[in-house]
Amino acid sequence: MDKEKKTDKHKSVGIISPELFTFDYLKLESGDKFGPISLAYETYGVLNRDRSNAILIAHALSGDAHAAGVHEGKENTGWWDEFIGPGKAFDTDKYFVICSNVLGGCKGSTGPSSINPRTSRPFGLDFPLITINDMVRAQKRLIDHLGIEKLLSVVGGSMGGLQALSWLVNYPQNVRSAVPIATTIKHSPQQIAFNEVGRQAIMADAHWKSGNYYDGASPSKGLAVARMIGHITYMSDKSMAEKFGRAKKNAGEPFKFTADFEVEGYLRYRGDNFVKRFDANSYLYITKAMDNFDASAGRRFEDSLRGNKAKVLVISFKSDWLYPAYQSKEIVKACKLAGIETTYCEVDSTYGHDAFLLEVEEETHLLKHFLKKIFYAYEVTGDYGA
Amino acid sequence: MDKEKKTDKHKSVGIISPELFTFDYLKLESGDKFGPISLAYETYGVLNRDRSNAILIAHALSGDAHAAGVHEGKENTGWWDEFIGPGKAFDTDKYFVICSNVLGGCKGSTGPSSINPRTSRPFGLDFPLITINDMVRAQKRLIDHLGIEKLLSVVGGSMGGLQALSWLVNYPQNVRSAVPIATTIKHSPQQIAFNEVGRQAIMADAHWKSGNYYDGASPSKGLAVARMIGHITYMSDKSMAEKFGRAKKNAGEPFKFTADFEVEGYLRYRGDNFVKRFDANSYLYITKAMDNFDASAGRRFEDSLRGNKAKVLVISFKSDWLYPAYQSKEIVKACKLAGIETTYCEVDSTYGHDAFLLEVEEETHLLKHFLKKIFYAYEVTGDYGA
Repeated sequence: MDKEKKTDKHKSVGIISPELFTFDYLKLESGDKFGPISLAYETYGVLNRDRSNAILIAHALSGDAHAAGVHEGKENTGWWDEFIGPGKAFDTDKYFVICSNVLGGCKGSTGPSSINPRTSRPFGLDFPLITINDMVRAQKRLIDHLGIEKLLSVVGGSMGGLQALSWLVNYPQNVRSAVPIATTIKHSPQQIAFNEVGRQAIMADAHWKSGNYYDGASPSKGLAVARMIGHITYMSDKSMAEKFGRAKKNAGEPFKFTADFEVEGYLRYRGDNFVKRFDANSYLYITKAMDNFDASAGRRFEDSLRGNKAKVLVISFKSDWLYPAYQSKEIVKACKLAGIETTYCEVDSTYGHDAFLLEVEEETHLLKHFLKKIFYAYEVTGDYGA
Repeated sequence: MDKEKKTDKHKSVGIISPELFTFDYLKLESGDKFGPISLAYETYGVLNRDRSNAILIAHALSGDAHAAGVHEGKENTGWWDEFIGPGKAFDTDKYFVICSNVLGGCKGSTGPSSINPRTSRPFGLDFPLITINDMVRAQKRLIDHLGIEKLLSVVGGSMGGLQALSWLVNYPQNVRSAVPIATTIKHSPQQIAFNEVGRQAIMADAHWKSGNYYDGASPSKGLAVARMIGHITYMSDKSMAEKFGRAKKNAGEPFKFTADFEVEGYLRYRGDNFVKRFDANSYLYITKAMDNFDASAGRRFEDSLRGNKAKVLVISFKSDWLYPAYQSKEIVKACKLAGIETTYCEVDSTYGHDAFLLEVEEETHLLKHFLKKIFYAYEVTGDYGA
């Protein structure tokens, strides 16, 4: 074992201060003007002099801006901490890494739980219907604010991958590469159906009150059910069998409708934990944005990409049945038809959709190599490829 | 086309009167005595003189005793009507077909919504925790009552298949064959997880009130969510894509969190319809029975089958991801290891788990051939094979 390498792998970006960027308004995809908008974001590493080393990380449905390191006095590391830091996939000795909470979120960015300046009360369902493209438009404002004209890469798994595709289509001049991971051009009816049942579970909760629950109890039972459905789809049949089997939580007689099996206890635990940190209305708005997203915007996806100079790395996972490999292959096919230099890897993993968070070694290898190639091409030629 | 054959295919068993069989009590698997118990049942065709032509059909989670024909003055045909009737898979010109609503159900048999004779109020959660083996013990009493010593076959898909396996293991002297379709020896953690989320959705409904809702509003929203989850798992990614695509229900602007996509409308419709005909507590008890079931009873399944003289036909469907083919293959393997004459067919279907209700032609072919062989062997030898 290379000891120094091992130490590197465990280096953290350390203590991180979340930041906030507020701007006047955004013209939404619906045509409406909406603002002011705040985005919570974090950065890791240092932006180089010619601003060519910036990587934007886009988070998934339940993620936030806290992708790496720890906050002062807190213990929880960022959601992709194993990927971001000195010597890691997104090597903060080389790159400047940015992650922001999406528009519509509930972790510092403007969303349905934010105060509506017109009423001085939380928006609730008065929050406008936003899209993945709107989330990306807001991110573009943040990138402008940071003085970055062209991102080295936009990277994201799951809903983060939808955002990476949106960047690729809508801001071809502003990205040198994109890495959509475990994602799709557009949701299948099965993916829509799982999200819809989650939404129905929230809206079935008597505490939901058409979104006006901020003065009282939250629709936490409904949100917990939505999260449990999510967790089943994030794992694979095999990973569940390996993790839980049919092990029982309690010895002796099963008691009626308590969590008898380990897997039941796990789902309840994850559901109950989620409601402490997530807003039910945000869950509705964000899942709806995912379902409505179509990177091809009604055209053939390859037609949306023609003339695009960005390089693309697509990653999928064998046991991921929520975003199956065939959807990643559709991205690859369209990119190739559009003449985009595209690398594809289907990682052999049993973790299901969760693999994009867990297959650290394999993904690190792919990402490091890909980013180095893009970054080096620029270093040598000084050419953004535009 | 053979015109007569076509006509045969559309022959119905006609108008059917549901019947009720009540008996004193059952010793449950838990050790408790429970009774009196009533079972709603229907029969089609005529029992022959030596009582050798009786086939028991076991229904799935949401099924009932009404498997074929119509009730007087009603229009809805039984849930397996295309399989049961003159010239059909279960040819009522040859066989005597029986189907009963399971113990714990809500369609005429004793279940949690039945009146508890001790309190003169519905049982609710005072109903005992029942098992698949208990359902089968109750069916055995019905079969005894009908004067049948040995069934020609026990056939069922999904939860019906669990019952077929239970018959095979617990009453080897009383079945000449079994046909478990799209089923498993025991639920995987993924199957448990989907049922558990359905239960959580019901119990999260404020109207559930720990099962004491019979005087007021029912937990219909929670039950609808449970049913929607079910429907997603009954279809396949492909069958949903073929049926719905990304078609929208409403032209124009999407309105917030209404059913925009066809698939959303479908799920809501199926969920809303289900709550009119099903009891939420029955859903809890029956899904729990499914999850707790293990045909191998902690041993190797083949050890539970040794010496068993029954013949077995196992059917699975390629796109069924809820009860994947590998689970059917486990049944086949154990049967073969136990020396049981076993036929296996994995039907090439895109319908997912629903295929067991929809692949009429393919299944009819398999069932007819199999039943004929078993029945003919008896006719010739007069030997029950016991």
